[in-house]
Amino acid sequence: MALPTLRIIGFILGIFLITLAVSMIIPMLTLLAFERTDDLQAFIWGSLITFSCGFALVAPGRPANTNLRPRDMYFLTTISWVVVCCFAALPLMLIQHISYSDAFFETMSGITTTGATVLSGLDSASPGLLMWRSLLHWLGGIGFIGMAIAILPLLRVGGMRLFQTESSDWSEKVMPRSHVAGQYLLVIYVTFTVAAFLAFLLTGMSMFDAINHAMSTVATGGFSTSDASMGKFGPSAHWVAVFFMLLGSLPFTLYVMTLRGHRTALLKDQQVRGFVLMLTITSVLFSGWYWLNNDIPALDALRIVTFSVVSVVTTTGFAVDDYTQWGGFAVMAFFYLTFVGGCSGSTSGGLKMFRFQVAYSLLRANFKQLIHPRAVIRQQYNGHNLDEEIVRSILTFSFFITMTIGVLALCLALLGLDPITALTGAATAVCNVGPGLGEIIGPAGNFSTLPDTAKWLLSIGMLLGRLEIITVLVLLTPAFWRH
Amino acid sequence: MALPTLRIIGFILGIFLITLAVSMIIPMLTLLAFERTDDLQAFIWGSLITFSCGFALVAPGRPANTNLRPRDMYFLTTISWVVVCCFAALPLMLIQHISYSDAFFETMSGITTTGATVLSGLDSASPGLLMWRSLLHWLGGIGFIGMAIAILPLLRVGGMRLFQTESSDWSEKVMPRSHVAGQYLLVIYVTFTVAAFLAFLLTGMSMFDAINHAMSTVATGGFSTSDASMGKFGPSAHWVAVFFMLLGSLPFTLYVMTLRGHRTALLKDQQVRGFVLMLTITSVLFSGWYWLNNDIPALDALRIVTFSVVSVVTTTGFAVDDYTQWGGFAVMAFFYLTFVGGCSGSTSGGLKMFRFQVAYSLLRANFKQLIHPRAVIRQQYNGHNLDEEIVRSILTFSFFITMTIGVLALCLALLGLDPITALTGAATAVCNVGPGLGEIIGPAGNFSTLPDTAKWLLSIGMLLGRLEIITVLVLLTPAFWRH
Repeated sequence: MALPTLRIIGFILGIFLITLAVSMIIPMLTLLAFERTDDLQAFIWGSLITFSCGFALVAPGRPANTNLRPRDMYFLTTISWVVVCCFAALPLMLIQHISYSDAFFETMSGITTTGATVLSGLDSASPGLLMWRSLLHWLGGIGFIGMAIAILPLLRVGGMRLFQTESSDWSEKVMPRSHVAGQYLLVIYVTFTVAAFLAFLLTGMSMFDAINHAMSTVATGGFSTSDASMGKFGPSAHWVAVFFMLLGSLPFTLYVMTLRGHRTALLKDQQVRGFVLMLTITSVLFSGWYWLNNDIPALDALRIVTFSVVSVVTTTGFAVDDYTQWGGFAVMAFFYLTFVGGCSGSTSGGLKMFRFQVAYSLLRANFKQLIHPRAVIRQQYNGHNLDEEIVRSILTFSFFITMTIGVLALCLALLGLDPITALTGAATAVCNVGPGLGEIIGPAGNFSTLPDTAKWLLSIGMLLGRLEIITVLVLLTPAFWRH
Repeated sequence: MALPTLRIIGFILGIFLITLAVSMIIPMLTLLAFERTDDLQAFIWGSLITFSCGFALVAPGRPANTNLRPRDMYFLTTISWVVVCCFAALPLMLIQHISYSDAFFETMSGITTTGATVLSGLDSASPGLLMWRSLLHWLGGIGFIGMAIAILPLLRVGGMRLFQTESSDWSEKVMPRSHVAGQYLLVIYVTFTVAAFLAFLLTGMSMFDAINHAMSTVATGGFSTSDASMGKFGPSAHWVAVFFMLLGSLPFTLYVMTLRGHRTALLKDQQVRGFVLMLTITSVLFSGWYWLNNDIPALDALRIVTFSVVSVVTTTGFAVDDYTQWGGFAVMAFFYLTFVGGCSGSTSGGLKMFRFQVAYSLLRANFKQLIHPRAVIRQQYNGHNLDEEIVRSILTFSFFITMTIGVLALCLALLGLDPITALTGAATAVCNVGPGLGEIIGPAGNFSTLPDTAKWLLSIGMLLGRLEIITVLVLLTPAFWRH
């Protein structure tokens, strides 16, 4: 990599670090508000170290030549998340006196909006710590949306080119240029968070719980302020969470389009329609099954199941009940739901709805072709032609997400984890969901007892999943580093 | 479907049934040789019923118009396997006094060369019964090779068009017309079986055991004459089995080409090289791990692990040891190996080697494209261009095999099976391997205790897997039945 390229990458990293250092002021203010000044120095030190490093990178000034090639973007994207995570972990380590492995895992889980935790005793934890965890979700969420909309489509990763903004029907009028779009996105993201905060307040949550859960919900993260997760709160809070988890898992570009006058953008979008339909059918059928097998009111069954399904599918990972106790069928169903994911251009992870829909469209065409071998069948998705490149990149992505989960699970099993923990741990990390299945890492457990090596491997898994895998793997090919 | 088409399909079915009825003479002769004439009538009745039905279908004579369209072939292929299975189950039911569900499961497991069994007490079972089970494997094996070479490539199922015989470099000279090829195939198949029989005899097996295991091994089936499977026999028998399982899982077209003078056909084939390399690496590394974790001689570790790996990957399903007791890592590894499968055009099931290799080739190209967005990258496999249709049909196949296993596992879990049994049972059935994981259906268990509905579902799974899934699913689309 050439020196000017490295300098511009360093400059951008510096800006990220300074932003991170500044955002540490929020947990500091929280601590001041709660009069817990003894925890303050963790954030002061964290902020100072982060700011110094950021400043050192920015100080040489912005290089004149600001052209980054696509291949530089892969490097920049991956290194940004890693570097930000390294520094964001500092306050966690200092405040909680946990190992750097634990702090790094928790931070990676935060910024990738996974929500898997190594901490327990959250109900009595420092409010600064809880605020920082929620804030990591929130920052990671907006960071990922920005990346998914501005960078990934250009990189042609995993069929994301389908969502390239310059394509014909996403015209300039409706979908503005990226820096304007960025402002719209931020406004929408903040609005959703404020709305979620107010709604949670109305359900009777404390202000602190409402702020934290608003950030965690809109970012489809999953960190809570209680070991009981959302089980601590009442039914109305659960329905509010369902609504905002759903909002957080729809394509944010469509909100921008709606704001700019394209009122039916959300309603007409094939991905949104399919996603909402799938969630509705799954929740209703699953609730029916749960109601028939348990002696509880139908509405409670609907709430508990819908919450759990939406929480896993949107890759949030909140829990209201330990669904691993619901029997083999439920365990299997939640294992599958771990992979589904939300919509592209949202804060959620997983395979994502559009890939299933594109696959379905290909399958239909393939079947037609089998019956009418000579027919020429064109496939479209959301008005886009499905060309060979998109098909291949979705194939590549699906193959690699399966491989990544498979290899990760095998490594975890080699470390001595039982097969269920290894397999579901790998899946929940790579799909950025949060809880796995089984007694150890299930919705009632946490990741603290896993060996350190497992935590590092799972951190890598979360990062790979968040960056749509290929973005990172491409860095590992020799061709990438050749001129 | 038009009447002339139905008549020709009926005629072909009739021929299959008559063949089946005639082949029941072999277990009859076995019973005579063992002087177990009391079991004879099960086969006499089975044969008579089968022959009568076959004769009734053949009696109207061969219709003059013998043209079947590709879509008729889907129907013919699927219905043949189902009808043959229905009749082949008769002697099992009559001789063993088991339910028709059990007999159908056992027979489907036999003709699909899966090798999952509901029977126990095999060591003292009727020799006629054991011979019939082995023969089902053997007939199913040659039937599948014929289908995989002559029919599937024409049907463009799952990327099998890659192996269409009329393509440029599989010229007429090396690869003869289908009826000549059929004779070659039969000669090769019989030769392998006789060779396996002689080799097993040399290791000290009884003549009866040697015949049964020869048929079961070459067909990569997995039925044994003992509840201990191949654990009943000594180390040399294991190595013989490894060799012939491997022979049975390589592309039989390549043997034909070798016979016709293309001496290096096997050595130069990308699929064969990849498959043997993969098996070698997996066996050696896995043996090393096993040896380090167990206090046994290195050669025994190598034998036990290599046998188990080759047995699962070639989808045979013999066992020498209960590998589910080897710990979490082994369980996970064997779960993965269940999916791999052998080579195309062999008797083995699963995803098959060439699909992994095509996927790998696509991934390489996709990565290159990411780094050099404007480059035009051509992909080849075994000298064939990988065009869009092949890529799409492999995508379709991979998607549907995953979906089939997923849905089947979910249905099994709904019936009350635990997640491990449900998931690995579905996988082992669809991939035609044989044993699953867990206590119930693991290599030391069997399928007898499962509910009848589960057995029918698993039978459907075995059939779907054997017919490369799409062949059957296409029959379920409304478009198929429209004119």
